[in-house]
Amino acid sequence: MNDNLDPLFKPRAVALIGASVKELSIGNVIIKNLLHYKFNGPLYPINPKVDEIRGLKAYHSILDVPGEVDLAHIVIPPPFVPDEVENCGKKGIKAIIINTAGFKEMGAEGQALEDDSLARARKYGIRIVGPNCQGIINSDPMINAYCNFTFTYPEPGYISVVAQSGGVGAVIMQAFYDMGIGQRMYASNGNGSDVSITEIISYYGNDDGTRAIVLYAESMDNPHEFITEAKKVTARKPILAITAGRTDKGAEASRSHIGGLAGSISMDLIYKKAGILTFNSQEDLCHAAVALSSQPVPKGNNVGIITNTGGPSVIAIDELVNCGLEIPPLSEKAAETLKETMLKSASIRNPLDVVATAGPEQFKSALEVMMNEPQFDSIYMNFVTPPFVDCENVAREIAATAKAGGKPIVCNYMTDKQKWSGTSRILKEGEIPCFDFAETAARALASMVRYNGIRSAKEGTIKTFTDVDKDAVRSILDKAVTQKREILTAAEVYGILEAYRVPVAPWKVVADLNEVVTTASAIGFPVVIKADSEKIIHKSDVGGVAVNIQDAQEAVKIAETMSRNFGDGIKFFVQKFLPNEQELIIGAKAVEGVGHIIMFGLGGIFVEILKDVAFTITPVSDTEAMEMISSIQAAPLIEGFRGEKGINKKKAVEIIQRISMLGTDFPEIKELDLNPLFATGDEICVVDARIIR
Amino acid sequence: MNDNLDPLFKPRAVALIGASVKELSIGNVIIKNLLHYKFNGPLYPINPKVDEIRGLKAYHSILDVPGEVDLAHIVIPPPFVPDEVENCGKKGIKAIIINTAGFKEMGAEGQALEDDSLARARKYGIRIVGPNCQGIINSDPMINAYCNFTFTYPEPGYISVVAQSGGVGAVIMQAFYDMGIGQRMYASNGNGSDVSITEIISYYGNDDGTRAIVLYAESMDNPHEFITEAKKVTARKPILAITAGRTDKGAEASRSHIGGLAGSISMDLIYKKAGILTFNSQEDLCHAAVALSSQPVPKGNNVGIITNTGGPSVIAIDELVNCGLEIPPLSEKAAETLKETMLKSASIRNPLDVVATAGPEQFKSALEVMMNEPQFDSIYMNFVTPPFVDCENVAREIAATAKAGGKPIVCNYMTDKQKWSGTSRILKEGEIPCFDFAETAARALASMVRYNGIRSAKEGTIKTFTDVDKDAVRSILDKAVTQKREILTAAEVYGILEAYRVPVAPWKVVADLNEVVTTASAIGFPVVIKADSEKIIHKSDVGGVAVNIQDAQEAVKIAETMSRNFGDGIKFFVQKFLPNEQELIIGAKAVEGVGHIIMFGLGGIFVEILKDVAFTITPVSDTEAMEMISSIQAAPLIEGFRGEKGINKKKAVEIIQRISMLGTDFPEIKELDLNPLFATGDEICVVDARIIR
Repeated sequence: MNDNLDPLFKPRAVALIGASVKELSIGNVIIKNLLHYKFNGPLYPINPKVDEIRGLKAYHSILDVPGEVDLAHIVIPPPFVPDEVENCGKKGIKAIIINTAGFKEMGAEGQALEDDSLARARKYGIRIVGPNCQGIINSDPMINAYCNFTFTYPEPGYISVVAQSGGVGAVIMQAFYDMGIGQRMYASNGNGSDVSITEIISYYGNDDGTRAIVLYAESMDNPHEFITEAKKVTARKPILAITAGRTDKGAEASRSHIGGLAGSISMDLIYKKAGILTFNSQEDLCHAAVALSSQPVPKGNNVGIITNTGGPSVIAIDELVNCGLEIPPLSEKAAETLKETMLKSASIRNPLDVVATAGPEQFKSALEVMMNEPQFDSIYMNFVTPPFVDCENVAREIAATAKAGGKPIVCNYMTDKQKWSGTSRILKEGEIPCFDFAETAARALASMVRYNGIRSAKEGTIKTFTDVDKDAVRSILDKAVTQKREILTAAEVYGILEAYRVPVAPWKVVADLNEVVTTASAIGFPVVIKADSEKIIHKSDVGGVAVNIQDAQEAVKIAETMSRNFGDGIKFFVQKFLPNEQELIIGAKAVEGVGHIIMFGLGGIFVEILKDVAFTITPVSDTEAMEMISSIQAAPLIEGFRGEKGINKKKAVEIIQRISMLGTDFPEIKELDLNPLFATGDEICVVDARIIR
Repeated sequence: MNDNLDPLFKPRAVALIGASVKELSIGNVIIKNLLHYKFNGPLYPINPKVDEIRGLKAYHSILDVPGEVDLAHIVIPPPFVPDEVENCGKKGIKAIIINTAGFKEMGAEGQALEDDSLARARKYGIRIVGPNCQGIINSDPMINAYCNFTFTYPEPGYISVVAQSGGVGAVIMQAFYDMGIGQRMYASNGNGSDVSITEIISYYGNDDGTRAIVLYAESMDNPHEFITEAKKVTARKPILAITAGRTDKGAEASRSHIGGLAGSISMDLIYKKAGILTFNSQEDLCHAAVALSSQPVPKGNNVGIITNTGGPSVIAIDELVNCGLEIPPLSEKAAETLKETMLKSASIRNPLDVVATAGPEQFKSALEVMMNEPQFDSIYMNFVTPPFVDCENVAREIAATAKAGGKPIVCNYMTDKQKWSGTSRILKEGEIPCFDFAETAARALASMVRYNGIRSAKEGTIKTFTDVDKDAVRSILDKAVTQKREILTAAEVYGILEAYRVPVAPWKVVADLNEVVTTASAIGFPVVIKADSEKIIHKSDVGGVAVNIQDAQEAVKIAETMSRNFGDGIKFFVQKFLPNEQELIIGAKAVEGVGHIIMFGLGGIFVEILKDVAFTITPVSDTEAMEMISSIQAAPLIEGFRGEKGINKKKAVEIIQRISMLGTDFPEIKELDLNPLFATGDEICVVDARIIR
């Protein structure tokens, strides 16, 4: 993680192995781009048969290049790549972008070539971007490196982009460009054989010129490392990401084109754990990046609204409220001041409608007053440019007053940008983030508030319970390994849970039919009796489970029937039958490279029909556990509905954290399901559970 | 509704009363706009003190104008407006746009001036648009009427816009303009004192040049009429609307700026009843309008995908699937064909990745094959313009092949439109709807599919039940009117339900304490006993309700307690206590100008916590009732969950339709709540109900 990517992002000289005179070729386009973007260093086209390309002297081999070279593109067919990597090593090159496709993504042969190239690069300490990638861009005027075959030439700016998919990267780059927004650095690393997205994120994180980072990834090779590194970055500056593969079909398409494990774990969970702002829409993401890279982060979710047109403020409010923002009223004092400064037909409230005929003075006063209202954390503005208003001076007041006010502002700027080019320029120079629609401006503001929530959230405590008996769990799991059983018996499952002090209903396994009654009496009726045999998996389907057994007579009858049905070798799992006030489910599932995903939800229809469950990645802090509990739709049932007491959330948090620790301590536990737990009064207690190792 | 709005939308001559030489004034801007837009007729500025404005001869009074005038703008202050309307009448003018604000929206004085203006207009048969409005635009090259003070000059096209809020109208007009999409007609009618949105929608509906209609309204004066007229239009061409005021705060803001009853009924329900496509985002709406006005309507929800870049197809699929579209596989035959025509690295499946290096031939073949696959109803395309591909010829093939294929196509066109202007022009001329982002293109396609659903949906039958006893209901309601009771007694409520054959649990009201037992025995235990007194409203809170009474002894005890608590005059409502397998709720609420809103949902937490309910407006057809039932989140419980039988949907539909008819027959029923109904086996039965008249 400490590798320095400077030779890649700040190359002093660039070579292009596979440079071509053919205009419609990557080997030509990259030269064109570097020239057009005014790359601040020597540029060496390499082509064994040509002496000049686009007016530059071409060399027959990279080894013929006279000067030092930091970075080389390789755009020749895959079979020739490893040897050229070797040559680059000999030349002392420090970074290579392999643009060529046809490696890992095309099967075993390509994988071998990719591995070979990487091995040779490692030998020389060369870092590789790609293969099957676009490359990088650095808009820093001291560098001007357009080492990329895309077509958008970004202006300098504060947003850096990293995209696994070059297509999406190109779209996002073009979107910023179309909005007139500059960009800092860009990278698309394709197959990612060496330089990883995680490294690039860290590099951007340490770059003072980058204020916001945009990320597109469909999978992660090492999610755990990514989470660790990204978390460090999101504490300082926002990372914004598209959640790709959020549907099964989408994940399938992703697997097909990147050949990875996309969708095996929701990228959303990884992003959430890392404190990354997620989006389903590229446009919303771009808008949020613009706002976050030009304005301070709002300290809360209360918005003051200024508008010079009615309808768009209705749409804005609908969207703001929909995103969870609040629109508190104006103070009386503010209203008094505004009565003096506003036009007669203005509507003095929040939203403050200055009306279409409002001029610079009205806008200035409106913004000053709203900025000074302590109950507003940010300002949302609708500004349509009426042809009968001095809009340039309005824009000047907006820019100056916003800057002085120190609170974040977003603007739904409704105009023809050609006709009002002066006004547009003033707003741009004032770094007022402008959006074409009320709802997009509102969502950009909501994203800023979301980032404030992430940045100011308490991380919480990852509790290490010292009262657990790891040895007991180890020996249960070892026994299962020895006996080659993947599904643990009920006794083993409850043994593990008890070892980690997860509250379970009192239970005992007995082999003898006569013991059933004495055990049941000792535990206390009513009880549950289960046929305890690894051969019977779905016990309730085959009569292997009997619940709410009220007395000895009934218990005997049940046990006899089970003996008859499942054979003499059967054991009986006898457990206290508990009343159920609220069913809960807690689950854990191991995911390669991540740890475990923990699930929480209410039981029955809430899980099965409403899919009303929350997930997070281990290790789970108390804050995260509490957030899971509060985030489900049916949370009011947990809080207590219609005067009922609700469940003991503290206990639920503890159980989630104990299960999280169990998963961390024993990664070999593949799946664990506490389904259900019963919450009764202050108690929560597991009444059925399953563990697969 | 048969009024012809031709003088408004196709004026042969226009006058502007209040024309001004001051550039930053509405009276000048409108002249400028008409001139710039090359209005196809004489233009008469009216100003008592000036002889020339913007090079046109100005007249001192409308009465001085020599020629005939169809349409006049009035932009002078409100107090002078009525007299000028009178003058317009004398001049024989047929339509007036009152741009001036300061009427109804400013209180009683303004309302009086608005009423006066309208009365004078009516006297002369003049139609008024406004006051407090922008006006109209007609881009028909034979007309070129820009009777409006906005700033966007639309090219001719096929989309017509009507907006109550000029601000939103202007944003939408500019959005189409920025996309390079033409528009047909535009209208913003502000206070809507005369010409209504309904009339304008009908006018657009009858205009052959209009292929899609965009609507923004925050309220409707006559929703019933709107629904009736809009329905006729949506059967022929799509109407697309923003749902404004969807949050309480949004509705409040709307009431404040238009002074109407916005939010008193969700516009969403009105739109749904009228078959209007609704949107929460102006941009999504614009995109859908572009697609619907340039492509045929897809016949189903199966999409074939062609892409030349990986990531954007993942995003597209996520969004398509999220919108309920399907991505069926390619046929084997199609795959065989494509193996011949595609590049080696292409991925031959659905999505078909032709890869970035694909040229015109690959695109042509891909599109031909996909268009011929009968399992695809539409084509979604990602087209990024690689700098090493002959994109113009790709575009030519896309345009030609799409046209010949006859199936709708949308395109996520990823490019720099300046650099690829030739390619962009070819796609535009080919009427390929192009969008900047995968998800926006996907949503546009989903909206087209949604419109197909609306257009092809069975209207269903509004059943008129002949077995109902209207007289019985009439006499119950009349009695309540006479006795000035708004809340009906239990006996009255059940009397009404029985008269409309809504199944209720057997019941009887008895006055005598001794009768309670005989009645309960006759009905059959277990029973419910309620204290039947209009004085007790929330009976269960004060011990006025006892359920699941098992025998005579218990019944006597309960009745005695109630007598003691509520006094001797009390009556007893005795009803069969029914087992509950599934609770339902059906409600009706009268809304002025609409009829009743009918609600359906499951009881308890589903309504109270999850707000999982469906609404529609009376009269409710069987199709609509069934759709309500299927649309709730918990619908699987209704269908039967985990092998259980589910509820009798046919019976539920019948009850909804009977309640709908009851509402239609007796509009004075303000509120009706069947809460709950119990669905047990095949039966559904009301067990508690309330009616307020």
